Amino acid sequence: MQKLTILKIGGKLLDDDARLNEALADFSKIEGAKILVHGGGKKSSELSRQLGIEPKMVEGRRITDAATLEVVTMVYAGLLNKTVVARLQSLGCDAIGLSGADGNSILAKKRPVKTIDYGFAGDVETTNKQLIINFLNQNLTPVFCAITHNGQGQLLNTNADTIATTLAVALAQDFDVTLKFCFEKNGVLLDPADENSVIERLLPADFAKYKSQGTISDGMIPKLDNAFAAIDAGVAEVVICGRGGIAPGSFQKGTTICR
Amino acid sequence: MQKLTILKIGGKLLDDDARLNEALADFSKIEGAKILVHGGGKKSSELSRQLGIEPKMVEGRRITDAATLEVVTMVYAGLLNKTVVARLQSLGCDAIGLSGADGNSILAKKRPVKTIDYGFAGDVETTNKQLIINFLNQNLTPVFCAITHNGQGQLLNTNADTIATTLAVALAQDFDVTLKFCFEKNGVLLDPADENSVIERLLPADFAKYKSQGTISDGMIPKLDNAFAAIDAGVAEVVICGRGGIAPGSFQKGTTICR
Repeated sequence: MQKLTILKIGGKLLDDDARLNEALADFSKIEGAKILVHGGGKKSSELSRQLGIEPKMVEGRRITDAATLEVVTMVYAGLLNKTVVARLQSLGCDAIGLSGADGNSILAKKRPVKTIDYGFAGDVETTNKQLIINFLNQNLTPVFCAITHNGQGQLLNTNADTIATTLAVALAQDFDVTLKFCFEKNGVLLDPADENSVIERLLPADFAKYKSQGTISDGMIPKLDNAFAAIDAGVAEVVICGRGGIAPGSFQKGTTICR
Repeated sequence: MQKLTILKIGGKLLDDDARLNEALADFSKIEGAKILVHGGGKKSSELSRQLGIEPKMVEGRRITDAATLEVVTMVYAGLLNKTVVARLQSLGCDAIGLSGADGNSILAKKRPVKTIDYGFAGDVETTNKQLIINFLNQNLTPVFCAITHNGQGQLLNTNADTIATTLAVALAQDFDVTLKFCFEKNGVLLDPADENSVIERLLPADFAKYKSQGTISDGMIPKLDNAFAAIDAGVAEVVICGRGGIAPGSFQKGTTICR
């Protein structure tokens, strides 16, 4: 099967121009079919505050009221997505920026209100796999932001890790998929303060143990839930790594997720 | 040749949700290949002011400094483009939003400084015609915002009328193109205060006469310059119309540009 690399970049990697440029330069060197998924970074919280909207987060997820949805649509789908696409184009990578609404590429459903009302937050329902395959066959590199739609005209704010995972799982039937979650740490760390404490291989039993011990906590838990879901659903390789882990053949391999 | 409709919507049509929805509903009913190009509306000036950036216009064109480029990229490529795409998707039109950076669809050059420094304003150099034809062949409807790039990583603010014209001219070799510039008036008016004074057919000699008399002035002049350039370059039909002129077979046909 043809190889496909899906790279998700997020966190502080998006907030620092120099680091983002390095990450994009490395990404552009990956041969063969590839897809980039980017999160939001701190810019949307900054813009919210400038507009007098105090950002509200619950368990690391943004509460998206109507005004916040406007902000994240502007920042994710506008500023970040087009900045990344223009840079990739300058690096010889034929990038095309997409929200889930574009070509109906990712259809989502407004998250039902249980204990918390997340507002215009979307849970992914389906991806338009054929559209994405057509783009890859045209040597285009899709660049997804974390905005989706519900098919009835409503845009929705969606977790970028989940988008990357859903794409990887959907395309695992047609490609030999490597899914990399890339952020500001070198991988999953045994000691958050020590960048050299990267766990090289993470098995489900270890994940359970580290969770119960509190070694792995907070935002790393949903990220690893996504990572294990991907490997369980047939994605060939799933890695959590830092910027140094993007380039093919890098020595900073990060954490490989094992079944 | 296959028919292709290119509709540019702008001005106050974009500022009023109800009118925009009517325009998009009519656009979605157009059969066959179609492309939408949208301008910016007043939202970007509003956002600029909220962020403490006073919008600067010279001869109807925005002076785009670095902060303003961020604003227009957020509003045009983010909020407006994705709102329009999501609405079209809900109307059964398989829209895909594009800036000029996406798939290198429109390459531009930063406008040289002569008497006025327009900042990050872009003049269109080339369009990636094959990409657009591929999309049309996949039954996708491209929705262009007025943001382009220079191929070296720089986004540029570009006039939406010019984008629509450039696309129409490039695709006139392959399609029987109708180009419609749709705005808040019913067409080119003999008396700006009278919506019933639409000039049905406008010849170059009439345009020259109306310009010298002052009947046609201000922003209508560059729009008509674009319109005549399109008809001269082989675009089959060029029309300036109001919202009522979008739907196929409408009685409000607006102003047809003649050679």
